[in-house]
Amino acid sequence: MRVTSKASEKSLVDIQSSRDYRKIEIDKVGVKNITYPVTLLDKAHGKQSTVAKVNMYVGLPHHFKGTHMSRFVEVLNEHRHGIRISSFPKILEAMLDRLDSESAHIEMAFPYFLERVAPVSKAASMLHYDCTFKGSLVDGKYDLLVGVNVPATSVCPCSKAISDGGAHNQRSIISVEVRFKEFIWLEDLIEKVESKASCEVYSLLKRSDEKYVTEKAYNNPKFVEDIVRDVAHEMMIDPNITWFSVEAENFESIHNHNAYALVEKWPEEPKGE
Amino acid sequence: MRVTSKASEKSLVDIQSSRDYRKIEIDKVGVKNITYPVTLLDKAHGKQSTVAKVNMYVGLPHHFKGTHMSRFVEVLNEHRHGIRISSFPKILEAMLDRLDSESAHIEMAFPYFLERVAPVSKAASMLHYDCTFKGSLVDGKYDLLVGVNVPATSVCPCSKAISDGGAHNQRSIISVEVRFKEFIWLEDLIEKVESKASCEVYSLLKRSDEKYVTEKAYNNPKFVEDIVRDVAHEMMIDPNITWFSVEAENFESIHNHNAYALVEKWPEEPKGE
Amino acid sequence: MRVTSKASEKSLVDIQSSRDYRKIEIDKVGVKNITYPVTLLDKAHGKQSTVAKVNMYVGLPHHFKGTHMSRFVEVLNEHRHGIRISSFPKILEAMLDRLDSESAHIEMAFPYFLERVAPVSKAASMLHYDCTFKGSLVDGKYDLLVGVNVPATSVCPCSKAISDGGAHNQRSIISVEVRFKEFIWLEDLIEKVESKASCEVYSLLKRSDEKYVTEKAYNNPKFVEDIVRDVAHEMMIDPNITWFSVEAENFESIHNHNAYALVEKWPEEPKGE
Amino acid sequence: MRVTSKASEKSLVDIQSSRDYRKIEIDKVGVKNITYPVTLLDKAHGKQSTVAKVNMYVGLPHHFKGTHMSRFVEVLNEHRHGIRISSFPKILEAMLDRLDSESAHIEMAFPYFLERVAPVSKAASMLHYDCTFKGSLVDGKYDLLVGVNVPATSVCPCSKAISDGGAHNQRSIISVEVRFKEFIWLEDLIEKVESKASCEVYSLLKRSDEKYVTEKAYNNPKFVEDIVRDVAHEMMIDPNITWFSVEAENFESIHNHNAYALVEKWPEEPKGE
Repeated sequence: MRVTSKASEKSLVDIQSSRDYRKIEIDKVGVKNITYPVTLLDKAHGKQSTVAKVNMYVGLPHHFKGTHMSRFVEVLNEHRHGIRISSFPKILEAMLDRLDSESAHIEMAFPYFLERVAPVSKAASMLHYDCTFKGSLVDGKYDLLVGVNVPATSVCPCSKAISDGGAHNQRSIISVEVRFKEFIWLEDLIEKVESKASCEVYSLLKRSDEKYVTEKAYNNPKFVEDIVRDVAHEMMIDPNITWFSVEAENFESIHNHNAYALVEKWPEEPKGE
Repeated sequence: MRVTSKASEKSLVDIQSSRDYRKIEIDKVGVKNITYPVTLLDKAHGKQSTVAKVNMYVGLPHHFKGTHMSRFVEVLNEHRHGIRISSFPKILEAMLDRLDSESAHIEMAFPYFLERVAPVSKAASMLHYDCTFKGSLVDGKYDLLVGVNVPATSVCPCSKAISDGGAHNQRSIISVEVRFKEFIWLEDLIEKVESKASCEVYSLLKRSDEKYVTEKAYNNPKFVEDIVRDVAHEMMIDPNITWFSVEAENFESIHNHNAYALVEKWPEEPKGE
Repeated sequence: MRVTSKASEKSLVDIQSSRDYRKIEIDKVGVKNITYPVTLLDKAHGKQSTVAKVNMYVGLPHHFKGTHMSRFVEVLNEHRHGIRISSFPKILEAMLDRLDSESAHIEMAFPYFLERVAPVSKAASMLHYDCTFKGSLVDGKYDLLVGVNVPATSVCPCSKAISDGGAHNQRSIISVEVRFKEFIWLEDLIEKVESKASCEVYSLLKRSDEKYVTEKAYNNPKFVEDIVRDVAHEMMIDPNITWFSVEAENFESIHNHNAYALVEKWPEEPKGE
Repeated sequence: MRVTSKASEKSLVDIQSSRDYRKIEIDKVGVKNITYPVTLLDKAHGKQSTVAKVNMYVGLPHHFKGTHMSRFVEVLNEHRHGIRISSFPKILEAMLDRLDSESAHIEMAFPYFLERVAPVSKAASMLHYDCTFKGSLVDGKYDLLVGVNVPATSVCPCSKAISDGGAHNQRSIISVEVRFKEFIWLEDLIEKVESKASCEVYSLLKRSDEKYVTEKAYNNPKFVEDIVRDVAHEMMIDPNITWFSVEAENFESIHNHNAYALVEKWPEEPKGE
């Protein structure tokens, strides 16, 4: 690469690589909130194209002044096709190698689409689930997390029990993040979660379907507490899951704020409690 | 590039005031998205402190290169106490005067709080309504708009009619913007809107209240279409309202997308159609 | 309230189609904020997969109680492959036909990706542009708009002129929306806009590139006013553009608020003023 | 409180208090994202009114089916005047007491305003800082955190060093969260952070001020890495700070993504490293 001419006699000094004397190690430094097109592994169709928000960081030893930001984007660009959580170790190693660090972190958030068939009419449409992959490699140890945010219907059991007709209900977002032993499909994790709400949601419902989901939900009322417990139980009995956090947030139809619950399972706790 | 010598000798040249030769008038130029503390007129308590996001613009004649951005903030700072829509003409005139323009625009969005008393328990709490004031003064003509975003409950009439038990319902945001003849209280506009949903929402509901709002809403099912029509009718029969737009957005509990409706009344149309 | 008897005997009554007596026509009713996977026409590669936020509305005559929301999603689902602004008339006609209305509106917002080559190192990476397609068909008249949001660098001319070294600069988003005669590529519209800022931005810049963009921007300072004027001029001299609005918003590095400018060209005004 | 009448023979059964058999304790359950007006302690003026987003949770023992959501809002409503981080223990105790739990958590995020005087013209205006208070009381142990998000200017040292004129710069948000021994003023924490950027930002700058801040920043270039290190150092040498995390995010003017760095100090590490 030649830069040019006379005017630019300033050399391309690499300030980032110069020595730093503050003796403060930086835990994470890198690029945040890059929007990038990626191709993911899809259980039903082989591949799925989507758009990810990506963060990539490395640790910076105390004696270096700065990191080289462009290299993160180079690594991302090289690996953006055929991404799956199990390809994260390769990406993390490339980051360590290229950025000359001992620790690397990558986070991707993206909408993932599944075809959903309405329960009675069988009309098909796409439903999106906001998902996340997070990976880190610190001092030779990998840590991989898969997360799904599943929209669902929740019907309030208290409202149903005390009211002469109806029950307040609302959209709920159930967020689950897991650590695991063997490769796990987003599709399978979503299905485990979705089945624990009052009812699943759809993009396209004909009148017969609307009757079905209204009745299914009404006959299956669940507090935000019930939802996180039932999803947590599902995670606890799955021998492939080594850690999880389960959150549910109900966009209450009777309030202008939300109801929320969280169960988090620490790795050291015995399964099934 | 030589940076100087005699450092402070660079004069504070006013580039903005220099002549522009592109012959393109700028419709709006100014500051956007300033967060500022303001005091509003409050019907019940005299004054209410809140936080506004403010945009301020003027028109720029084709022969000026730029506007003087700091003057917008000066005007805002001088007028931030005791703001009411009826003080907007004064602010707009200050903008014209200070910015040497023929047109001025100001937009403020802020949460406005009302104390709400639960319907049965009478427990009191605060509920916030996102509101807007917009004013413009163009070629000597004022235009003032007041907007309110009212959270409410909507119950689906179709779901109720076809289902053996229950009905899907959800939080709805009803957004109304009006032009008017005489000063109008946010409180009064909010009340007109809130009463047209299936039920109003509260921050604090005891069990007796939850029964009440569940039943009230279930006995008063409304499509998003019904809500905008009923609010629009309320606006049409108010002789003080000279123009309005009414929107409702339902955060459907059975979908991951929203239902939406809009009625807009143009000034030239006769009242009551 | 008694809920039933002979449970499933509740007929699937079509409340939406029943008669309404309020005599209020609804301007727009439909679905809002659906996230959907779409395939767009791409100038360089034929096709590009991305993710769109979609709104679809129709007008509802005063005598109908409601619209049939599921049909919007059916239309979207059928047309989601190979979308280009010139396929919007077909989608709008399908909406009129399926929803039995006289007016239809569709809005799509999506990130669109272009490969960008760094100016000196020639390193390649993807850059995203938030774009919009909007179409409406009202009483037989089509209206189609294409919009692009182009990130760029802006350097303040005033700051440069008065300061002994440096000049404040920042990311700017330039938003252009156009009406046009003949089909227009997003790529071409983006390029027209991008070239009018102080400098274009990139996802990946090596040190030699960073020198290049810093100097290019510093030697090309532009107020937010200059940017909208230069882009507006570009639109005015393009005989294919029949209307435009040009906005620029600078995320000022010396403030916690933004500088903003807008030029809008109304259709009835003569070209070139 | 009496509910009424014949129709409502359904009793107000307290489902939440009924026994749960899943043996899953819930870590956090409560209300999220309530917008509430609060009054804070202000160093200069005694009191400051602002608007907070509030989350409140308690732990739920495995044998209870649900919590009583309305009680959170009751506690918030009773304590919303005169809030300071040192009043959080009282609020947390009220939550434990009212919700009958062993653990309680409260999080408040709010814009906090300080009057800022421009460096040369001495023109005054308000600047907002997004701040947070977080408190928890778990098994008798309090944990209190104060956070500030400080907008500032950052100038890139590499860009300055290699370029013949200018240097890219941008708005940066520096986010600091601390644990501490003695009461700490938001004002003091903000000042410690603000002084470590290339330059502080203002809402209102006259031309003489713009010259000043441009030159100050240009003469004080800092990588995102420098900013977090310098702020971290400031925290390390403060004997009142027992833990901190420091993040900086630069809205790069030459990219459409951000540069980011984080230093976090764990309590067990010795001060000053």
